[in-house]
Amino acid sequence: MSNKTNQQWGGRFSEPTDEFVARFTASVEFDQRMYRQDIQGSVAHAKMLTEAGVLTEQERDAIIQGLSEIEQEIEAGQFEWSVALEDVHMNIEAALTQKIGITGKKLHTGRSRNDQVATDIRLYVRDEIDFILGELSRLQTGLLDLAEQEADTIMPGFTHLQTAQPVTFGHHLLAWFEMLNRDYERFVDTRKRVNIMPLGAAALAGTTYPIQRQLTCELLGFDAPAENSLDAVSDRDFAIEFCSAASLLLMHMTRMSEELVLWTSAQFNFINLPDRFCTGSSIMPQKKNPDVPELVRGKSGRVYGHLMSLLTLMKSQPLAYNKDNQEDKEPLFDAIDTVKGCLRAFADMVPALESRKAEMREAALRGFSTATDLADYLVRKGMPFRDAHEVVGKSVAYGIETSKDLGEMTLAELQQFSDTIAEDVFDVLTLEGSVAARDHIGGTAPAQVRAAVQRGRGRLAERS
Amino acid sequence: MSNKTNQQWGGRFSEPTDEFVARFTASVEFDQRMYRQDIQGSVAHAKMLTEAGVLTEQERDAIIQGLSEIEQEIEAGQFEWSVALEDVHMNIEAALTQKIGITGKKLHTGRSRNDQVATDIRLYVRDEIDFILGELSRLQTGLLDLAEQEADTIMPGFTHLQTAQPVTFGHHLLAWFEMLNRDYERFVDTRKRVNIMPLGAAALAGTTYPIQRQLTCELLGFDAPAENSLDAVSDRDFAIEFCSAASLLLMHMTRMSEELVLWTSAQFNFINLPDRFCTGSSIMPQKKNPDVPELVRGKSGRVYGHLMSLLTLMKSQPLAYNKDNQEDKEPLFDAIDTVKGCLRAFADMVPALESRKAEMREAALRGFSTATDLADYLVRKGMPFRDAHEVVGKSVAYGIETSKDLGEMTLAELQQFSDTIAEDVFDVLTLEGSVAARDHIGGTAPAQVRAAVQRGRGRLAERS
Amino acid sequence: MSNKTNQQWGGRFSEPTDEFVARFTASVEFDQRMYRQDIQGSVAHAKMLTEAGVLTEQERDAIIQGLSEIEQEIEAGQFEWSVALEDVHMNIEAALTQKIGITGKKLHTGRSRNDQVATDIRLYVRDEIDFILGELSRLQTGLLDLAEQEADTIMPGFTHLQTAQPVTFGHHLLAWFEMLNRDYERFVDTRKRVNIMPLGAAALAGTTYPIQRQLTCELLGFDAPAENSLDAVSDRDFAIEFCSAASLLLMHMTRMSEELVLWTSAQFNFINLPDRFCTGSSIMPQKKNPDVPELVRGKSGRVYGHLMSLLTLMKSQPLAYNKDNQEDKEPLFDAIDTVKGCLRAFADMVPALESRKAEMREAALRGFSTATDLADYLVRKGMPFRDAHEVVGKSVAYGIETSKDLGEMTLAELQQFSDTIAEDVFDVLTLEGSVAARDHIGGTAPAQVRAAVQRGRGRLAERS
Amino acid sequence: MSNKTNQQWGGRFSEPTDEFVARFTASVEFDQRMYRQDIQGSVAHAKMLTEAGVLTEQERDAIIQGLSEIEQEIEAGQFEWSVALEDVHMNIEAALTQKIGITGKKLHTGRSRNDQVATDIRLYVRDEIDFILGELSRLQTGLLDLAEQEADTIMPGFTHLQTAQPVTFGHHLLAWFEMLNRDYERFVDTRKRVNIMPLGAAALAGTTYPIQRQLTCELLGFDAPAENSLDAVSDRDFAIEFCSAASLLLMHMTRMSEELVLWTSAQFNFINLPDRFCTGSSIMPQKKNPDVPELVRGKSGRVYGHLMSLLTLMKSQPLAYNKDNQEDKEPLFDAIDTVKGCLRAFADMVPALESRKAEMREAALRGFSTATDLADYLVRKGMPFRDAHEVVGKSVAYGIETSKDLGEMTLAELQQFSDTIAEDVFDVLTLEGSVAARDHIGGTAPAQVRAAVQRGRGRLAERS
Repeated sequence: MSNKTNQQWGGRFSEPTDEFVARFTASVEFDQRMYRQDIQGSVAHAKMLTEAGVLTEQERDAIIQGLSEIEQEIEAGQFEWSVALEDVHMNIEAALTQKIGITGKKLHTGRSRNDQVATDIRLYVRDEIDFILGELSRLQTGLLDLAEQEADTIMPGFTHLQTAQPVTFGHHLLAWFEMLNRDYERFVDTRKRVNIMPLGAAALAGTTYPIQRQLTCELLGFDAPAENSLDAVSDRDFAIEFCSAASLLLMHMTRMSEELVLWTSAQFNFINLPDRFCTGSSIMPQKKNPDVPELVRGKSGRVYGHLMSLLTLMKSQPLAYNKDNQEDKEPLFDAIDTVKGCLRAFADMVPALESRKAEMREAALRGFSTATDLADYLVRKGMPFRDAHEVVGKSVAYGIETSKDLGEMTLAELQQFSDTIAEDVFDVLTLEGSVAARDHIGGTAPAQVRAAVQRGRGRLAERS
Repeated sequence: MSNKTNQQWGGRFSEPTDEFVARFTASVEFDQRMYRQDIQGSVAHAKMLTEAGVLTEQERDAIIQGLSEIEQEIEAGQFEWSVALEDVHMNIEAALTQKIGITGKKLHTGRSRNDQVATDIRLYVRDEIDFILGELSRLQTGLLDLAEQEADTIMPGFTHLQTAQPVTFGHHLLAWFEMLNRDYERFVDTRKRVNIMPLGAAALAGTTYPIQRQLTCELLGFDAPAENSLDAVSDRDFAIEFCSAASLLLMHMTRMSEELVLWTSAQFNFINLPDRFCTGSSIMPQKKNPDVPELVRGKSGRVYGHLMSLLTLMKSQPLAYNKDNQEDKEPLFDAIDTVKGCLRAFADMVPALESRKAEMREAALRGFSTATDLADYLVRKGMPFRDAHEVVGKSVAYGIETSKDLGEMTLAELQQFSDTIAEDVFDVLTLEGSVAARDHIGGTAPAQVRAAVQRGRGRLAERS
Repeated sequence: MSNKTNQQWGGRFSEPTDEFVARFTASVEFDQRMYRQDIQGSVAHAKMLTEAGVLTEQERDAIIQGLSEIEQEIEAGQFEWSVALEDVHMNIEAALTQKIGITGKKLHTGRSRNDQVATDIRLYVRDEIDFILGELSRLQTGLLDLAEQEADTIMPGFTHLQTAQPVTFGHHLLAWFEMLNRDYERFVDTRKRVNIMPLGAAALAGTTYPIQRQLTCELLGFDAPAENSLDAVSDRDFAIEFCSAASLLLMHMTRMSEELVLWTSAQFNFINLPDRFCTGSSIMPQKKNPDVPELVRGKSGRVYGHLMSLLTLMKSQPLAYNKDNQEDKEPLFDAIDTVKGCLRAFADMVPALESRKAEMREAALRGFSTATDLADYLVRKGMPFRDAHEVVGKSVAYGIETSKDLGEMTLAELQQFSDTIAEDVFDVLTLEGSVAARDHIGGTAPAQVRAAVQRGRGRLAERS
Repeated sequence: MSNKTNQQWGGRFSEPTDEFVARFTASVEFDQRMYRQDIQGSVAHAKMLTEAGVLTEQERDAIIQGLSEIEQEIEAGQFEWSVALEDVHMNIEAALTQKIGITGKKLHTGRSRNDQVATDIRLYVRDEIDFILGELSRLQTGLLDLAEQEADTIMPGFTHLQTAQPVTFGHHLLAWFEMLNRDYERFVDTRKRVNIMPLGAAALAGTTYPIQRQLTCELLGFDAPAENSLDAVSDRDFAIEFCSAASLLLMHMTRMSEELVLWTSAQFNFINLPDRFCTGSSIMPQKKNPDVPELVRGKSGRVYGHLMSLLTLMKSQPLAYNKDNQEDKEPLFDAIDTVKGCLRAFADMVPALESRKAEMREAALRGFSTATDLADYLVRKGMPFRDAHEVVGKSVAYGIETSKDLGEMTLAELQQFSDTIAEDVFDVLTLEGSVAARDHIGGTAPAQVRAAVQRGRGRLAERS
């Protein structure tokens, strides 16, 4: 049995908490990472209480000084965390009271753990989103630089993993850039709903003390106080929304990872990953494995799982706070850590990708990748598209049979399928001709890729 | 065996599609609901092709006329959908060609099914989001009206489903309003990323025709053309993001539903749901079941499931389009239908809720709901909060033993626990005193509830 | 307003059900597919009631005759389903009463919709599991046949999608066989918990009529009656467990599909899928897309989603039946349909796969796939494994530099890295030598593959 | 940069692993918990290698002695785990080699990390399942004891959370027993598929050493060696299946928790939870919160999430091992820990539940809970059930209007609705009469509850 009876809520209880229950219900092991935000929130609360006449200036200063010392102790690894004190909030408050006496107890005036924890976690998530936005920009910058370098590099574009049409490698990288751009926007949108202040909701109904919520709000950099106290202590939307944005980001990273794994295979052999981003095998001495993209691909699972975890958690909870909500933190924290780790790994690795231009080009030459260009050629000569499609389909069937790509056939061979085809057909059957012809906004032409890189740089510049 | 060999992509194939495979891979049974958007997109594409000199004005007009007739046939239930033609797009194109001949085939110039389907689905989702936003506003308006009526109605506020502090019923309803407000914002944010035009991406790389994407964009009311063709045909973020916003909405509705179910139980008995929103039992004649909230609570599962379905779908897909993506529609469509059904049911039902004021009040009187007020009273008299907490805890223990609520004890009884307590204590131990004292923005005081209703009306008014 | 007031539960209600609510809460559109099981259950119930003396033999015969006619009408498409009658049960009961008069009403004696629906759905799932087990056996048989044919075909084995060691194609196919074998076992285990009879639980507490549950149980082929009435009407574990087994099966099918998609790419080119299992492109005439494996891969999403849907559905429901549970059917039914469709597609397609032996062999020759064999050679000559690994690692680095595979180096070149290497090394550097040497149960040696096929045939034979 | 180049797979690499990548890809921080199983597996492998003539007896003994010392060091907290050594396997092997020299390196002969890690994790899960089965039995025993005590205690049975029919509390507790019984069976079924030995699969294809898999299998207590080497190193079904069984268990626990939370509310007030299983509030001195059931209810989220995480992880992975799979451990381990914690909390708490019999009985008297009994009474007098339902429905409507329960009406009042009703009706309108009449297997009659408890004890006894 723990001796919590004499603690924060003892008066009404006739026996101490069961020791296993005390451990089972404590959160200090995982919520201590919010110590900085907890102290930041308490300092603002103390300042507000002083303005409101609840604390004297001396009391405020003692509190701030005490909290500052505690922060230093924590950062120096000298703070003793106690499971009996349940959570980060009680640990810090108990330490404060031990340090400055009865004044420490006054800090809790006009607030409750319910609004305090909701405030801490929002401050924490806001800080982490800001860091993540920076890492996203770093990765996107790397992509723009690489896309510019590779604006003329021709590779096969795939649909259904079958050769479809030639594209430029730069264009492909810009597709990744666009995915990440939506992720950036989603984190920005999420941040708006994170940055709302629960403080003042107290346990659930507000408080009878003359608090000044607008003041606390400004001190903490929140956009606005929460409009409703019951909602303020019950709401965990922001955690779910974060995990949703993170799931989309990780999903994008699985797609990039899948391609990186394919491209480093002996069969594709489109790129090289520097050795420092790979590991080997304990049994097969020749192996060089693309561990980083594989692991990132796998980490999508945990983020999807955390999203589902939080959605499940909140299902069917009556208002206001319930103990269930303590389960919000670990999934959220792990989602944050995962996002940061994966972004760092990619932002470091992507600029170091080396394209194998000859292999890419050779692959684009295989697989009838200019078949659409032949069809378009016929349409420009007046044939309806669906008929041109039929002509080209037959040419391809002939090519499979005779092992010749379209560009390798003679004019006579091509004319078997339509006498509309003339000598000028060979202009459109080159890879360079094919990509250059897709010359509109969003198209794969090298000129368009360069223009898109410039627009991308402009969009990144507007962020700061 | 179906005879699809002679269809859209036949030239290269040596045998017809297996009949089961044809059915297994067809989508027309579920994608035909996008017929209006498909025609809308084709009309805009035809107009653009005419401006671009690809079609003549006569061809354009024949196409528009033909499509208009097809739309009428579909709406009249006279259109013959064919599984052999795979999807809504091919069905309509085939009908058009049958109607207007070879010109019908020219409509597909400069586009592909990949960008066409991506365009249709975005138009469809945009339309549905606009409808959903309207239903959300309708439900929120009902909540504001009811909250205003119930601004003075006192009920117990709960944490851990234990009586915590008195609140007003209006205040509780405004917590629901706030939840829905975030849902509204999320759908608005999602709409921004829905309303981007894929058309022009063609199969994956853009097209060699002189298309004018900006023109099509304006004709269709899109905010901008997609920046990258590979991304444009691969991206299904908007479907996931819709399901994420829908999951949060449904999660909120489970919380409201849980409370409605609790409140209509014999044990709580806080509200009455009109008979028309309830059903009975085939075996127990006395039953009146809150089917609507129960069913809505259950429907959260399908929306969470669809979100997970789409996240799974997109995991690890290499660019660009893969057949997997055909699986995007059914989850998305069902999520849309579910959201619309649940919102309609609630927007109809909520204004008809009848509160049982006497029962709510009586419940608030039980359970020591003014204990915090007593603690705050002691603090105002100079006692540190944590000590006041201890005094009240002991008073409550005494009350449990003697079956007396705090307001039912004599002054002498109360003074056993602290001689700071004086005659004026009974002012704070009333329910009305308790709620009125929480008089700050976000607090439960009736005046604050009325003010919050006014602000809420203002926020709704700004939407239109 | 619908006129349901006069229906099954009207007496207590003062107004008819809202028309939208009637539609929103009705299930007949999706539960009518259980009509056969509903009638089967009613027939057994009627027989039991007759044994128990509740019905006369004439009443029983009239009921059975009436139900038989209804079944025929349904199968002939002549039955009028009514949404006002809510569900399959009420529709059939109303038709019966219309057909045979007051006796029809007596059929519901001693049961409730709660135990009736739980019985129907278990009968339905049991039937579908039996069908699925048959399809699994068919697919597994196809795999054994193909594995036997391909027992000597050498291909590269991959880890991290990097060439690892040579394996036989037959061995690879047997890995698929093993995955499916666990799926088979899981469906068998699930069936045990499906095949328990709820009938007799009535609404929740049992019934006051002298029912004979053991008799009904035998008539319906259930293994046992449910032990507890509250649990019997509340339990939906079997639906979740089915979806869990289905999710694992679909997960396996994504892995097979992923490999089929890779192997049909121009880069791998390991197999050919007959044209009848593929489709083409509306814009790119050369395309032949592996639609079936892609679509199956995508369909994993919906089954995972349904699993999550049902887990969410049941979370936090108090006993016994709640309306939420009506949401159990659509996810379950769609999971069943998906499993059946995917299995059929694969069972048809797998035997038609054509391996490209030359391409597989050539790929196995590339990528230093016999490096482990060289290391093992050195160990057999007395070198510790970790040292041998180092020697081979250096040989590989040299091979990359000089573009030579291990088997292409001279003895002198190899001896640069260890003078333990002798002329006999070339025996282990062949593909055939490598695979044949892995000659133990579970190993890739052709002899082991053939033995495993024989054991597999034995396991399939034991099923029937 | 770390200096891993000189490690297990260095020969082929030209630069050391990036330091962040080394940390990002290491698993030792979470896989070290499998140290005991890793050593157990290595000891068995060493014994087998000795039988196979690969190791001498002296080598074997040195290995076993070294591993035994390492195990003691780990358990004493004296082992230095190194992130540079990646995982538990490499850490232990490196320590062994340092201890016993070159012989330590020989231990890895004929195996790979791929089969080693798969073996360790299966041994680990098997051990944990055995522990979990014990805890399930402990909780079920507590339920049987309590159900026996409460076999005569009458409470309202609910459907739709509306009073339905009276049941006994013991009967309700047995519904929980049945849920847990299915969970027990599922873990037993899962264990069958866990207890299969991967060892011998080596990296993916088997090994060229003369291993004796059957021997290792017996030494480790596995049921059989895995049939296919590629499958053996790729399969993670058992982890998913564990999480699926765990999700169902946690789902059941949310239902129990939901009821415990409801029952401890002031509104239901059906039970008392001893203080040692509850906690209080930092701000509301009167609160006593049912933290344990709330937290368990919340923990369902994390287990559902882990299930989804693992299903996502495995989607679309080509064979055989990929680095993604390293992500299998943390979700699985956390699911195991969660299951163990929740079961312990419930197994401790359930026997301490105190029922409030008077409150339960009073609640059963409210809400027309004997309405079905009245209908059954009328049927026994010859009225068709559906007509009796109508009569009772009208009686209930009258009762609502006049605030009388059925048992409180006079005979004349009841006869208003049917003259079939006679004086003997009052026998069936008592609670005791109602429950006693449901006297068949699975029914709520006290005699049936006692019989079910006896059968339950028999089923538990068969387990050991």
